[in-house]
Amino acid sequence: MDPLRTKLGGISMINVTIWNEYLHEKRDETVKEIYPEGIHAALKKGLQSNDLNIRTATLEEAEHGLSEEVLNSTDVLVWWGHLAHGDVEDYIVERVHQRVMDGMGLIVLHSGHFSKIFKKLMGTGCDLKWREAGEKERIWVVNPAHPIAQGLPEHFELEHEEMYGEHFDIPAPDELILVSWFQGGEVFRSGCTFTRGQGKIFYFRPGHETHPTYYNENVLKVIGNGIKWAAPTLSAKPVRGNAQPLEQL
Amino acid sequence: MDPLRTKLGGISMINVTIWNEYLHEKRDETVKEIYPEGIHAALKKGLQSNDLNIRTATLEEAEHGLSEEVLNSTDVLVWWGHLAHGDVEDYIVERVHQRVMDGMGLIVLHSGHFSKIFKKLMGTGCDLKWREAGEKERIWVVNPAHPIAQGLPEHFELEHEEMYGEHFDIPAPDELILVSWFQGGEVFRSGCTFTRGQGKIFYFRPGHETHPTYYNENVLKVIGNGIKWAAPTLSAKPVRGNAQPLEQL
Amino acid sequence: MDPLRTKLGGISMINVTIWNEYLHEKRDETVKEIYPEGIHAALKKGLQSNDLNIRTATLEEAEHGLSEEVLNSTDVLVWWGHLAHGDVEDYIVERVHQRVMDGMGLIVLHSGHFSKIFKKLMGTGCDLKWREAGEKERIWVVNPAHPIAQGLPEHFELEHEEMYGEHFDIPAPDELILVSWFQGGEVFRSGCTFTRGQGKIFYFRPGHETHPTYYNENVLKVIGNGIKWAAPTLSAKPVRGNAQPLEQL
Amino acid sequence: MDPLRTKLGGISMINVTIWNEYLHEKRDETVKEIYPEGIHAALKKGLQSNDLNIRTATLEEAEHGLSEEVLNSTDVLVWWGHLAHGDVEDYIVERVHQRVMDGMGLIVLHSGHFSKIFKKLMGTGCDLKWREAGEKERIWVVNPAHPIAQGLPEHFELEHEEMYGEHFDIPAPDELILVSWFQGGEVFRSGCTFTRGQGKIFYFRPGHETHPTYYNENVLKVIGNGIKWAAPTLSAKPVRGNAQPLEQL
Repeated sequence: MDPLRTKLGGISMINVTIWNEYLHEKRDETVKEIYPEGIHAALKKGLQSNDLNIRTATLEEAEHGLSEEVLNSTDVLVWWGHLAHGDVEDYIVERVHQRVMDGMGLIVLHSGHFSKIFKKLMGTGCDLKWREAGEKERIWVVNPAHPIAQGLPEHFELEHEEMYGEHFDIPAPDELILVSWFQGGEVFRSGCTFTRGQGKIFYFRPGHETHPTYYNENVLKVIGNGIKWAAPTLSAKPVRGNAQPLEQL
Repeated sequence: MDPLRTKLGGISMINVTIWNEYLHEKRDETVKEIYPEGIHAALKKGLQSNDLNIRTATLEEAEHGLSEEVLNSTDVLVWWGHLAHGDVEDYIVERVHQRVMDGMGLIVLHSGHFSKIFKKLMGTGCDLKWREAGEKERIWVVNPAHPIAQGLPEHFELEHEEMYGEHFDIPAPDELILVSWFQGGEVFRSGCTFTRGQGKIFYFRPGHETHPTYYNENVLKVIGNGIKWAAPTLSAKPVRGNAQPLEQL
Repeated sequence: MDPLRTKLGGISMINVTIWNEYLHEKRDETVKEIYPEGIHAALKKGLQSNDLNIRTATLEEAEHGLSEEVLNSTDVLVWWGHLAHGDVEDYIVERVHQRVMDGMGLIVLHSGHFSKIFKKLMGTGCDLKWREAGEKERIWVVNPAHPIAQGLPEHFELEHEEMYGEHFDIPAPDELILVSWFQGGEVFRSGCTFTRGQGKIFYFRPGHETHPTYYNENVLKVIGNGIKWAAPTLSAKPVRGNAQPLEQL
Repeated sequence: MDPLRTKLGGISMINVTIWNEYLHEKRDETVKEIYPEGIHAALKKGLQSNDLNIRTATLEEAEHGLSEEVLNSTDVLVWWGHLAHGDVEDYIVERVHQRVMDGMGLIVLHSGHFSKIFKKLMGTGCDLKWREAGEKERIWVVNPAHPIAQGLPEHFELEHEEMYGEHFDIPAPDELILVSWFQGGEVFRSGCTFTRGQGKIFYFRPGHETHPTYYNENVLKVIGNGIKWAAPTLSAKPVRGNAQPLEQL
């Protein structure tokens, strides 16, 4: 019940940590050109607002930049990974998992569907169909009342994206907000929410590293809305284990 | 996408209209003693906050106090009714329904389960078991991550309440937040959310007119949280009907 | 708890009534050519199996073919309507609604989305985007564990169909099983389940009258699976109203 | 799509394996008296029917009785464990998990909430409140249309049971069917369904080893219904990975 959000100058801000694997951008010229300072830096800049207090963390930092201190002061963690899911240390995955159980929000982007933390939280394989053909994606809002859709048009397009197709091996999401149409003939559940423990999780599909997707206004709007939705809104931490009766037996 | 919330002095407020049948309080001495100015007035006072711009409306006002002007400037409507569901004019029910479709939030309290508007939105009978024995109700949080549970203890008690028991004839709620235990042996899904059109709906069980339930701190917290949760968060108003292709056929 | 299914020769059969408006087929030569005896007759033939005891009913019969006797011996009602939703008598709609509350399954096909009974059960507008361009529809299974998807391929195609596009104005379905991709750029939640009262409801999108959709093997498989899923599986009829305590107060 | 159910003499049967830790019954005289041949044997006997082809498996057998051969010919696995969750080998847990992904049903009973396989499938802590006081439990049907509730009364009682109380740390179930009332003042979501991969999962609360719960007619009915509901109903096994376009790019 302890409010996790920082109060700065009387204004309640959400503490966001954007985690990025940050390998493609250092190894691949095409990606470097699009995201010269990394996807995390582009997202940080694009999401900048008075409500958010944003920092970043990357794989090659000590403890992947996710020390207990960092996580304990993170309200919402954003996750982008692709090449090196296996290099994320298990004890860090456990730490993030525990923090989600305790109420931290988690935004999983694109290829993060195959990250250890997402698979652990879902309990399923999290696999899907994919195709790198730079085809058109059109994202439709199927839940126009949801705060994550706030301010979105009925649909928006990404001219060139990687395709992800069904069946996406996740549990039925608590809420389905966005569905993608792909030029090559597939559909995908692209905006999905889940609650696990006291933590809120939002999976959002777009963001292949070879396309400038994270500069797209609507993509940024969705991620920003997702962060606000996923920020902790906690009731009392549940007490578990052996319990005394509340009524006379 | 037009923001429905009023900006007053730079602060975004939620415009709330509390609707009350307001008959018990005028006809029954016991009730009058508990709510001398009506349940609506007690709720208005109890919910007062910097975020909420609250007014009230009652059955016996012209158009039941729910003129187009009032509804068009209402973000969230709170509904309490019991004796006179049948006296609510059908054209007003249609008006409220349309407004929910367009994004207005709706908080339905206690015996409002049998109101015309709730039954129309649910599509089911909305009936339940009940008993007026002033027994103990203990309300448990089963979704401790939900914004409507924010700040609540694991459970809270109402020393004397009317019993409502399952089966409650509603569609499976989108989210189940609260479950009640009753001294006489029943359980009830007491905090349920639904989305209909672009509107968010929250049903909250307690509040029999012969008990001072709406002075209870946790009850007020739930209703206040419900109002914030149900406030409009709109994406573009969906366009329907005959549509031109977006791709070449 | 009374089993609704007929026992014939020791074999449990599901009593199905296929209701069809049956106007297009009499008025329009193109439609008549495809469905010379009506959509209901084509469905009856296509769904024929040892498990199903099928009869039909149409708008222009007395009581639209839905007398109390017929409904009381119907386990699952299939509904196709389009031109004349308004001509369906309200008292028949009430009768069907009550029967769904009591456990009868309901399969709503295609343009039935705008029928009085579906709108009443959903509580929303049930509107959508549409286009009659005979374009390609590809239907994807997004819930490959669901009995309604049993025996389906990952996706199947209908070469020529009317387009239905989001936002489809329904409550979030209890289960989403099928999502359509359309050549013109839209997506649609094409296979959706709902429970209302003790009745199970399945909405299935395809079936414009000018295309031979109801001869398609996979379409028939979905409808047949839907009927089996929606057949009554009842627990005790809930008792509602004033209730004696089960424990000492 | 390969039907997993055995055909014996033209009758389709569900192959059930009941797994039991089988330690309490050997170590504790009270438990031995209630279940002299083990909980698995009592369940096998109680569930006997023409539809089910039942065998059992226990912790101390080779591979815990869950060889590849056994699992590959199991349609639905029933799981009871308590003392020795940690002794279940991880490679067996992986094998069961993979089999659930491929469509095997799983019924998790009582203290199985803390088994490795359930926690892995849920992705959460799965903890709860508990009390061994032999108090009264009353189980209410909150989804009277669900096949798992078929034939149940509105509620049924277990005179003496262990208490399990909320918050139960699971994802929001896909379907909530049963809610328990406990004499000591708690409630619990006692009948919950989940889908993971192509597998259906049903958690059912009662069954503490010191009470004769698995001889109760309604408890057996729920487990039998659960087995039928969880039996595989498969669509084509999803193909994942790199995919060719279905439409011209």
